[in-house]
Amino acid sequence: MIIARTIEALQKAKEALDGSIGFVPTMGALHHGHLSLIQQARKENDYLIVSIFVNPTQFLEGEDLDAYPRREEADRKICEVAGVDILFMPTIDQMYERDELCIGAPAIRGYILEGEKRPGHFDGMLQVVMKLLNLSSATRAYFGKKDAQQLALITQMVKNYFMDVQIIPCEIVRDDKGLALSSRNVYLTEEEKQRALSLSRSLKRASKMVMAGELDVRTIKKEMMQVLSETDRVEYVAIVDRDFNALESVEIGNSIILVAALVGKPRLIDNIWI
Amino acid sequence: MIIARTIEALQKAKEALDGSIGFVPTMGALHHGHLSLIQQARKENDYLIVSIFVNPTQFLEGEDLDAYPRREEADRKICEVAGVDILFMPTIDQMYERDELCIGAPAIRGYILEGEKRPGHFDGMLQVVMKLLNLSSATRAYFGKKDAQQLALITQMVKNYFMDVQIIPCEIVRDDKGLALSSRNVYLTEEEKQRALSLSRSLKRASKMVMAGELDVRTIKKEMMQVLSETDRVEYVAIVDRDFNALESVEIGNSIILVAALVGKPRLIDNIWI
Repeated sequence: MIIARTIEALQKAKEALDGSIGFVPTMGALHHGHLSLIQQARKENDYLIVSIFVNPTQFLEGEDLDAYPRREEADRKICEVAGVDILFMPTIDQMYERDELCIGAPAIRGYILEGEKRPGHFDGMLQVVMKLLNLSSATRAYFGKKDAQQLALITQMVKNYFMDVQIIPCEIVRDDKGLALSSRNVYLTEEEKQRALSLSRSLKRASKMVMAGELDVRTIKKEMMQVLSETDRVEYVAIVDRDFNALESVEIGNSIILVAALVGKPRLIDNIWI
Repeated sequence: MIIARTIEALQKAKEALDGSIGFVPTMGALHHGHLSLIQQARKENDYLIVSIFVNPTQFLEGEDLDAYPRREEADRKICEVAGVDILFMPTIDQMYERDELCIGAPAIRGYILEGEKRPGHFDGMLQVVMKLLNLSSATRAYFGKKDAQQLALITQMVKNYFMDVQIIPCEIVRDDKGLALSSRNVYLTEEEKQRALSLSRSLKRASKMVMAGELDVRTIKKEMMQVLSETDRVEYVAIVDRDFNALESVEIGNSIILVAALVGKPRLIDNIWI
């Protein structure tokens, strides 16, 4: 495994690659969710590039940029064992210069739900993902469905800018109790972990209602709120189509049910595709 | 010459290309300035793509989008004769969808000079150029030095987003009296054409002053304003380095002297690289 810490080192390492390239961009603190992306990318491509970069432009003022978990040694081992060819770990000054061009998330779809709670977050996320996709020369890039809105916006970016890369959505990985894996889960106490299960439970409940024929969004959301009363604050419960347009009635095969809530200090998100 | 009016037709036509691709994006109404870009691109690449697209997002409210000269038949012939392989002439709905991601020009360098006079213009220009560069899969893309700030921002975009294309700056083409060619020159009356020559004359004067050892920006600009008194309104006279940082003293080999002025209704720009 080649470790590239500069653009130049990455470009040089890429010269040796002659075949399809799978790419998994991450912010490190790798868990089994990341690992499943990495494994899928490993299977589907000749070469595999993983990036670890805690991107400052997607953190808002007062968010946990400095406290974001960093575990470089462990991450390196995970990548090594998983058969990564190039691990790209740039410094901030390799990725950004002063007075840069920026990317603006779509005025509507980039500023609802996560975008409403974290205004500007998606601008920074799209900015770094465009940089990384171009830098990696990826044939296919892998993103988890857990960040569903992020995934939808990246897919839209590739379409809007005619980028030559395939975006591959990957299933959410959960622990044996149903909690969606997240690097931020390390902040949860045992008691909070228990209460955090209400997010996935609310989604399971919603899913069951739909399977039983209940398609009305208001009815489903009301029921979900009940289940979510165990959390400390529900930020939103939403049901949208796969392009993130709001729905009044669930469209089976084209819907996503999403939830964001605080449990203790950590802010958790989860969703289910129906 | 293949004429592609849809993304699909362009992608299909590109499949046959196996070699370097030169690309010249234009808004049509082709003149000898464009032709010189096309000819240089023809010489330096195996294949040549030209696009004609009057991009609505780079025109501000009240600008001449609807009145912008369109001469499709003549443009097609010029491209045919110049040996263009693919002429890409998309409709607006091929290039844009609703609620798009947008590009923001750099907060400083994108909002001075042209960007100050036409706020938002560069956002739209960069947006369409990024789309077109990706769509064309260009090895090299050719831009005139006449739109010097545009050229600098495109070069910065390619650098900031690690785009795999080489931006080639091309010399300004002038008529035999020195007037820089522009599609908007057709709007000038004979009398205005005479007065428009003061733009290039002011630049020549500045150039002579520099060659004679005068490097002070204020002194040079004052002298230029004298020459420009023939125009109806001077919008700006500026001396910047090649990255568009303002200068107090000309740096030979790293400076651009720019002028923008109204002559009659048309707004004209010109510059010289020193």
